[in-house]
Amino acid sequence: MAAVPVEIPEDKSVKSMRAARYYGKEEIQIKDDVPRPICGDGQVKVEPAFVGICGTDLHEYLGGPTFSPVEPHPITKESIPITIGHEFSGTVKEIGRGVSGLEVGQKVTVQPTIYCSSCGACKVGAENACASGGFVGLSGAGGGMSEEVVMPEKAVMPLPSNIDLDVGALVEPLAVAWHAVDASPIADLNEPKCLVLGGGPIGLAVVQVLLARGANPVICAEVAKKRQEFAKEFGAHHIIDPSKQDTVAVSKELCGGVNGPDIVFDCAGVPASIKTACHAVRSRGAVINVAIWEKEIPFNPNWLTFREASLKSVLGYQKKDYEGVLDALGKGSLKPDAMITGKIKMQNLIEEGYMPLINEKDKHVKILVDIKASM
Amino acid sequence: MAAVPVEIPEDKSVKSMRAARYYGKEEIQIKDDVPRPICGDGQVKVEPAFVGICGTDLHEYLGGPTFSPVEPHPITKESIPITIGHEFSGTVKEIGRGVSGLEVGQKVTVQPTIYCSSCGACKVGAENACASGGFVGLSGAGGGMSEEVVMPEKAVMPLPSNIDLDVGALVEPLAVAWHAVDASPIADLNEPKCLVLGGGPIGLAVVQVLLARGANPVICAEVAKKRQEFAKEFGAHHIIDPSKQDTVAVSKELCGGVNGPDIVFDCAGVPASIKTACHAVRSRGAVINVAIWEKEIPFNPNWLTFREASLKSVLGYQKKDYEGVLDALGKGSLKPDAMITGKIKMQNLIEEGYMPLINEKDKHVKILVDIKASM
Repeated sequence: MAAVPVEIPEDKSVKSMRAARYYGKEEIQIKDDVPRPICGDGQVKVEPAFVGICGTDLHEYLGGPTFSPVEPHPITKESIPITIGHEFSGTVKEIGRGVSGLEVGQKVTVQPTIYCSSCGACKVGAENACASGGFVGLSGAGGGMSEEVVMPEKAVMPLPSNIDLDVGALVEPLAVAWHAVDASPIADLNEPKCLVLGGGPIGLAVVQVLLARGANPVICAEVAKKRQEFAKEFGAHHIIDPSKQDTVAVSKELCGGVNGPDIVFDCAGVPASIKTACHAVRSRGAVINVAIWEKEIPFNPNWLTFREASLKSVLGYQKKDYEGVLDALGKGSLKPDAMITGKIKMQNLIEEGYMPLINEKDKHVKILVDIKASM
Repeated sequence: MAAVPVEIPEDKSVKSMRAARYYGKEEIQIKDDVPRPICGDGQVKVEPAFVGICGTDLHEYLGGPTFSPVEPHPITKESIPITIGHEFSGTVKEIGRGVSGLEVGQKVTVQPTIYCSSCGACKVGAENACASGGFVGLSGAGGGMSEEVVMPEKAVMPLPSNIDLDVGALVEPLAVAWHAVDASPIADLNEPKCLVLGGGPIGLAVVQVLLARGANPVICAEVAKKRQEFAKEFGAHHIIDPSKQDTVAVSKELCGGVNGPDIVFDCAGVPASIKTACHAVRSRGAVINVAIWEKEIPFNPNWLTFREASLKSVLGYQKKDYEGVLDALGKGSLKPDAMITGKIKMQNLIEEGYMPLINEKDKHVKILVDIKASM
């Protein structure tokens, strides 16, 4: 018996969905006609719940596209417009063939890293520094600010049962901090003395991770009053105000008076901060640069020489860092809830999200987009 | 019976000696009225045999005093004029009370480091980076270019029986290289791939130490033809001419094509070399800065970030580095004889030593002053 073709009226809502799309400088649109992704073998479909707005998102909006591909990305093959949102949590909606260890409905966080597996960086296990690397939510392949996103199995990690979906969206920035701390010599030191320059979202995340890893004291140097309060709230033992105090001298004093901090994290990323970092660190200590820089700066290698110090730069995170953060959240040694200073709808992304973060950045740490409330 | 005082005519030659003294910019004098030092408890009097002329000596002569104290040095209490010569070998002339393990007449090399033992650097075992540190031969307390010098016991180390006194004067620059290599992650790597930028005396010493430590390949990038030949002679596996070749691309190719060198040593110390070093090193690799810099340079921390690399600066050496070099000389894994490109008398120090090293530096590696021949 031959099948008789029947014309079924197309239900566009099944094939398309709502998502926030980046088109270029100062242009983000909420679209309802974005193709709904299909969950293939070895993949997991996630319904995003909360999405954090990141400094990179703001940079792309204000001055980009810098990171977002204008030519087809070597891995995703996509170029702008792309769906945004790379810091996100969600629930599992569909599980592809061959995927194990996940259940539909499960609360998860998502590691958005995209990498090639074949370049020099990937070959030495530094896929976070992949030569053609990128991020879901910045480089194509979907993003968190949408109804659905499909991710490879290994990128989807269950949240501990005690962790809510809003906090799940903080795992990404905490993983940046975890990676930076893990790349430092912290494991070789007993109660390392640490100085964090800058009390923005990443600086505050580094403060929390350092405390979770047993650093003592943890000193945070930050000019803005509100951020100083945040740092104190997150448990920093001492706050230095570089506009009124000599960070090098005060941090040395706080570390016992003979030597400066064992490790200095530069989360401010300005010429003055890297100079301060190099002068504050103790002999044979380590400066960790967590910032991304816009241009060349004046630097003197002698700053390191006369204390035989090192300067290491870190980038992003790896699966082990997500696992470290999730473990610490589960145990309660990381309690980052207070980082969430606002929750908004996707429709108000610019006015209630980007603009406050750009114009009143001292007042905010993380503003989350509530995806369910936006649909 | 009471002692009858007898007036003995003073023999000035007993109390004074010949030495080369630095007075300031472009002023070095050979003096015969320098007080002969007295060997105290725990000290050893050494008769210098050969003294190397170092880049620092040339800098002091051309543009100093920079390193040499114009105010009393915090440890030696001396200021210019001071006796010069900090790279030297000699024979033991007198042994102070409490000194063991040395014999009069023994061939030795001398570690000229001066340090305070109480500052932050000394407290973490980095006495080579002592806040008030200095060197015999640069900071007072005598120097190698003299008939006699008195050193603390721990600074005087026997030469292996197969090593001549002239090679003994090379231990100091080789210890600089040993220290730099030891501060790198070489011990964690099997046959590390290394790039050395600059084929001057220190670059050539680093090439030799890397070979002795099992690095493969050892690549040396150097513009000057004669220095390229030296690097080849000392065993470098590959030479890159940065004036004709792309050091980053060629070194990557020589390291297998996927990744650049594991470790890059900057022994050139110019803005172009540190930029090249940061771009040539593999992901998660290490750049070791062995140079001393004159001023700030343009630098972008992103050079390190996008490969998660580190930049470490090293300074001088420690006793362990002298021991490492002496052990390697004894075993024959270091054969630096060819570094000696000239031997001169102290009386001809400027014309036959400093000037050729300043004006024809490509032709020379080390010019030694023969002290016995100068008396």
